[in-house]
Amino acid sequence: MLLGILFIASIAMIKQKKTRVLFFGDSITQAGVGPQGYITKLSDMLKDKNLDAQYELLGAGIGGNKVYDLYLRMDSDVLAKNPDVVVIWVGVNDVWHKASYGTGTDPDKFQRFYEAIIKKLQAKNIKVFLTTPSTIGERTDNSNQQDGDLNRYSGIIRNLASTMNCGLIDLRKDFLEYNLKNNPENKESGILTTDRVHLNEKGNEFVAEKMFNALFSKK
Amino acid sequence: MLLGILFIASIAMIKQKKTRVLFFGDSITQAGVGPQGYITKLSDMLKDKNLDAQYELLGAGIGGNKVYDLYLRMDSDVLAKNPDVVVIWVGVNDVWHKASYGTGTDPDKFQRFYEAIIKKLQAKNIKVFLTTPSTIGERTDNSNQQDGDLNRYSGIIRNLASTMNCGLIDLRKDFLEYNLKNNPENKESGILTTDRVHLNEKGNEFVAEKMFNALFSKK
Amino acid sequence: MLLGILFIASIAMIKQKKTRVLFFGDSITQAGVGPQGYITKLSDMLKDKNLDAQYELLGAGIGGNKVYDLYLRMDSDVLAKNPDVVVIWVGVNDVWHKASYGTGTDPDKFQRFYEAIIKKLQAKNIKVFLTTPSTIGERTDNSNQQDGDLNRYSGIIRNLASTMNCGLIDLRKDFLEYNLKNNPENKESGILTTDRVHLNEKGNEFVAEKMFNALFSKK
Amino acid sequence: MLLGILFIASIAMIKQKKTRVLFFGDSITQAGVGPQGYITKLSDMLKDKNLDAQYELLGAGIGGNKVYDLYLRMDSDVLAKNPDVVVIWVGVNDVWHKASYGTGTDPDKFQRFYEAIIKKLQAKNIKVFLTTPSTIGERTDNSNQQDGDLNRYSGIIRNLASTMNCGLIDLRKDFLEYNLKNNPENKESGILTTDRVHLNEKGNEFVAEKMFNALFSKK
Repeated sequence: MLLGILFIASIAMIKQKKTRVLFFGDSITQAGVGPQGYITKLSDMLKDKNLDAQYELLGAGIGGNKVYDLYLRMDSDVLAKNPDVVVIWVGVNDVWHKASYGTGTDPDKFQRFYEAIIKKLQAKNIKVFLTTPSTIGERTDNSNQQDGDLNRYSGIIRNLASTMNCGLIDLRKDFLEYNLKNNPENKESGILTTDRVHLNEKGNEFVAEKMFNALFSKK
Repeated sequence: MLLGILFIASIAMIKQKKTRVLFFGDSITQAGVGPQGYITKLSDMLKDKNLDAQYELLGAGIGGNKVYDLYLRMDSDVLAKNPDVVVIWVGVNDVWHKASYGTGTDPDKFQRFYEAIIKKLQAKNIKVFLTTPSTIGERTDNSNQQDGDLNRYSGIIRNLASTMNCGLIDLRKDFLEYNLKNNPENKESGILTTDRVHLNEKGNEFVAEKMFNALFSKK
Repeated sequence: MLLGILFIASIAMIKQKKTRVLFFGDSITQAGVGPQGYITKLSDMLKDKNLDAQYELLGAGIGGNKVYDLYLRMDSDVLAKNPDVVVIWVGVNDVWHKASYGTGTDPDKFQRFYEAIIKKLQAKNIKVFLTTPSTIGERTDNSNQQDGDLNRYSGIIRNLASTMNCGLIDLRKDFLEYNLKNNPENKESGILTTDRVHLNEKGNEFVAEKMFNALFSKK
Repeated sequence: MLLGILFIASIAMIKQKKTRVLFFGDSITQAGVGPQGYITKLSDMLKDKNLDAQYELLGAGIGGNKVYDLYLRMDSDVLAKNPDVVVIWVGVNDVWHKASYGTGTDPDKFQRFYEAIIKKLQAKNIKVFLTTPSTIGERTDNSNQQDGDLNRYSGIIRNLASTMNCGLIDLRKDFLEYNLKNNPENKESGILTTDRVHLNEKGNEFVAEKMFNALFSKK
């Protein structure tokens, strides 16, 4: 993610002001600004490393959001905040709502609306990072109901990151690797999540580390 | 629909060219340009009344389309054709795909994307007519699986027509009235449809009449 | 429901013991034995009318149950209790789980498993009453998402009651009639339910009255 | 599968009549008796090895069947035929109908009805073989929509085979292994299926071989 980091660093230097990083997503990101949330932890990490004068972190997560919702609220909730960097984390509800409401997102439209969001952000010279949807169920033997779709939609996101020159934070891959080591009983939840989807404290820590490395560390 | 008619008539007079009417929708509209389709029948009716020099009818229906699809293809498939009038007929798949793919449309997003389409058309001075989704099943005792949602989404469309100053062709209401008279055995299909959804010849005739009255007749 | 009442009365006389009435259903019935529940209210009504020496009421409701679940647990939860009368109230989850889990019940299998339950009860000389599923949403204009299916599955239940000589408590019809009078604002919930499905206090009272009339009153 | 083979062989010897093997399943099995079907191919293989005097093969597949359907029709379609061996192949529709009709099968009820079928067959001294559901989509990277559920329900079937002393034909595992070698382009269909689910000629051959080894070969 060197490109992204240099980019962010250079923004900070030129602008002589804090680089504003906005996290755009669903309920996971909404909880991210809570006391134990991953965005709060990222802020703490920046303080620990004396980087807090350089960065300002903003949460823009709303529970239940799918790619359509992000698209509809991006003017008011993202562009109006003038961010330098936007981290998009969406996809869990696009897949999950198929079974729980019958209103999930078709793969082709997931891609097209996601693309439209990226284009609009890049047109404003905003650096964009994409995140793959982590889990709906932490079993490691590909037997969680939505595993097939999460893998498929993650593939779409990886392609978008590659073809549209975005940063990629591949949480789907990261979570599975972690669980393969730390979930020997093949549990549905309780490793990085409280309820198969939302992050427990370890999960928030884990995500904060992965995000820090992608966004702020100079490796 | 007097307002609409006068409007269309006045366009024709001012422009000294054919008024271009585009039908924007799903598989029902795609079939509408076939030999027995409702758009073909409308063309025949215009000829019969010596109105064919004044109007040009275009079909822009694609099977499986939901409101999201119309939104995504409106630049290329509608605005690029410079229509004077657009008749939107969408909603069946937004409701139906909940059960058949898990990718139906949430009511709030149905409204917001529909609104966005109307706004974009009206910004180009295009006169817009809205159509309510006719049927998924012709039983008249409210026992077709999607009746609740079709009624709800039709309500959203009626509100949009009223608040956004669009014409309304209330096929949901028209089809039910027709079936209450002509479907005494409470059949699922075979009255105005072949398969609960797509129009048989009588259905195409029925729709053509309703559309003609709304779009072209001077009552 | 005269037949049912005489039947129940005659059981009481012959047996010289309390007639045991068991309520077999889902979460609505599970809540029925709570402090404000409809079964508790029925017990109170029996006391008020000095009928409590004649009847014993038992609840056998489990949240989330569909017709398949009733079928699987009828030996242990119903037959083992030796009831004289069983009131079956099922169907809401058979319809609702289509949208919320993708595991609703096909209409043909709803009928066949329901039939199998009735047959097994009648083979033990148990008098059976069937209840239609009341509501998933209290709007009165047929615009609740599951209205079509609730009407369809209620039709199946009415047919079963008629062809298999069971009592019928037509709550679907009763609830709609009540809402047409008492829900002028077309609200989704708050009239007889707390949340579109589960009974509020008025709802429990209403159901207790309907059940009392069907099961115990000598009209 | 030595136990099964000896068992089948011993039946043949004792009875001095053909061992009757019945294939009980869904549309895949219904097609199995067609000219290119896997059951037809099995018959041909038995002839080639001069084993056709010992075995009689019967198909009992009906399109769209789920475990509930097998349960409901087992008296008429299986027990009435007096088979010595029953091969059950079910699960695809239990999973698939979640998305395509909203009427898939809950995992706990899949297990309980499957168990009930096995018990009823074993009570008649019928040898039972279980088959795991092969594929809904042949992509090999776990990105077919139903992969998670197919893996989960296959796990349930493997457990049942093990705890209830049934033969196991693990087609889910076999198909994936075959595709990992023969589907380098990660196609959705066309390797062993025509349409992601139903067998093409190669698929019928492949299944016939796996079944032959499990049921008839003396390794």
